[in-house]
Amino acid sequence: MKSLFLLLAAPVLLAQSGQKFAELRNLRLESGQTLAACRVGYRTYGKLNTAGTNAILWPTWFSGKTDQLEGFLGPGKMVDTGKFYVITVDALGNGVSCSPSNTPGTFPAITIKDMVDSEYRLLTEQLGVKSLHAVMGISMGGMQTFQWMVAYPGFVRRAVPIVGSAKLTSADLLLWQAELSAIEAVQKAGGDPRTAMPAVLAMHEFALSTPQHEVNKTPAAGFPALLQTLQENARTGMDPRDWAAQLRAMMAHDVTKPFGGSMEKAGAAVHAKVLAVVALQDHMVNPASALQMAETAGFEVLRLTGDCGHGAPGCESAKMNAAVAEFLARP
Amino acid sequence: MKSLFLLLAAPVLLAQSGQKFAELRNLRLESGQTLAACRVGYRTYGKLNTAGTNAILWPTWFSGKTDQLEGFLGPGKMVDTGKFYVITVDALGNGVSCSPSNTPGTFPAITIKDMVDSEYRLLTEQLGVKSLHAVMGISMGGMQTFQWMVAYPGFVRRAVPIVGSAKLTSADLLLWQAELSAIEAVQKAGGDPRTAMPAVLAMHEFALSTPQHEVNKTPAAGFPALLQTLQENARTGMDPRDWAAQLRAMMAHDVTKPFGGSMEKAGAAVHAKVLAVVALQDHMVNPASALQMAETAGFEVLRLTGDCGHGAPGCESAKMNAAVAEFLARP
Repeated sequence: MKSLFLLLAAPVLLAQSGQKFAELRNLRLESGQTLAACRVGYRTYGKLNTAGTNAILWPTWFSGKTDQLEGFLGPGKMVDTGKFYVITVDALGNGVSCSPSNTPGTFPAITIKDMVDSEYRLLTEQLGVKSLHAVMGISMGGMQTFQWMVAYPGFVRRAVPIVGSAKLTSADLLLWQAELSAIEAVQKAGGDPRTAMPAVLAMHEFALSTPQHEVNKTPAAGFPALLQTLQENARTGMDPRDWAAQLRAMMAHDVTKPFGGSMEKAGAAVHAKVLAVVALQDHMVNPASALQMAETAGFEVLRLTGDCGHGAPGCESAKMNAAVAEFLARP
Repeated sequence: MKSLFLLLAAPVLLAQSGQKFAELRNLRLESGQTLAACRVGYRTYGKLNTAGTNAILWPTWFSGKTDQLEGFLGPGKMVDTGKFYVITVDALGNGVSCSPSNTPGTFPAITIKDMVDSEYRLLTEQLGVKSLHAVMGISMGGMQTFQWMVAYPGFVRRAVPIVGSAKLTSADLLLWQAELSAIEAVQKAGGDPRTAMPAVLAMHEFALSTPQHEVNKTPAAGFPALLQTLQENARTGMDPRDWAAQLRAMMAHDVTKPFGGSMEKAGAAVHAKVLAVVALQDHMVNPASALQMAETAGFEVLRLTGDCGHGAPGCESAKMNAAVAEFLARP
């Protein structure tokens, strides 16, 4: 599906890399179940230096694929691929990596921690990466970044969660529950879950920016065209079973879980230097827990303040790109 | 369904009135179709004075019923029933007045204008009301209030649309389309449309306030209880066919339609003195068109500024009630 974040893609100097795959055997899941075989999609840019100190991991956002991240990468871009060895990874359940839609039989429930574990195994077992200069990601990629900080603290020197969160709030849960319930209702009625996607994508679009931004962007007379685009995306976009799997993963996300629910203890477990990018008017991923963890653990915070909501990293890209590039360039 | 606006209901001095009904014959609809018989529910408070100058009409909000308005009415309340003769009306499609759920066969599409026309006929044919001191309403009641101003300009001396709108924006349309699509998807799959209501009510709850307000009101640990309440409301609340009928009515709402789309011309048609109450952070009924019409036609505007969103009339009731009471009391 087309994403707001594609706004960041410039027509020239676009980094490009072919889709690669790693086959992970016996991927142990947080639930206790094991995936006997899980293919993980990824792409790489630049080269790992001799000391092995310049690797950056960037997992995908909700419903996203690695090709959508290429606009951020390149010489002179936010992440300088002349300097860094960048590995972008298709998060589990995105339809490229192992997912309900490409796995015969029943696909087990996955979590954000499972995505992170699959990425750790990809790096250490397949790519010879022994530590990360940085882990970063947008939205659900930012959730994975928060999870990385506490799950593999010794492995990560810097972390840049962008419009991500450390744990979901009731507002996030309401939104994802609405989308999930719409899919489940059609499944329960014996219908094709894809027919639920027009409702799901309308909700998603509603929450992606702020109403004010939507009103300014789309006059009421333009609504039929917007609706047509959503319906086309509903027909051709992400498989609703994958959509639901990633929704459930986000809904269970809470980095304080292994710390008895304590944000202080979770924050204390982090070794990485962190720049948390939050959008104060974000209606899709509430910034409350990111700000709370930043305050308790002393992270740097970049506040995006405009009315683009969750799309702020696109709308305020100049401000964000400069801050992130500077943060990554520090020794 | 329980509504935020019930917060305004005080435990004492509550105005109470029994449910009444008027039978309207041959109600001509905006579509050109005619409803051979349409029962309209209403309640009355206070007494029409001899000069017939003290009547106030108050139609219900989306999915609301007249009993939910009683908290605003009474001696010393926002609308003083010692002084005014108040008629609250169940808007068409609300399950009390004629609606898909209580009409055999196919129920025709209804509009906000149809609601207004049914109210006009109730007042003039059944209650002997020849003009209104004021028409007022909240949310979809505010939409009806805007429609009243332009449809029966000579009949209305004052108008108080509260978090209503003159025409929908793309943001409103996205929200209602999401809810409507969720119901339609289940219907298309041959399921009971009521099974779509958990998704619809989660979406509705998400947009009713702002995420910030929701986060402060409901900690993440309280989400399961909130979800249970929504699921109970989904089982027992408004019939989804009525929900869809009122959604479609709102989605077609545009007071500029008879004026070639001109807000200036629509505003010029208004004779009433108007106090438009808007919530600047409203995520459910965008205030843009109310503000635009107010500016072009010189309405007074009361701005509610807090983070309660569409629930601001409840959260900022002290401010609102005083302003509305003062406006209504002017000669």
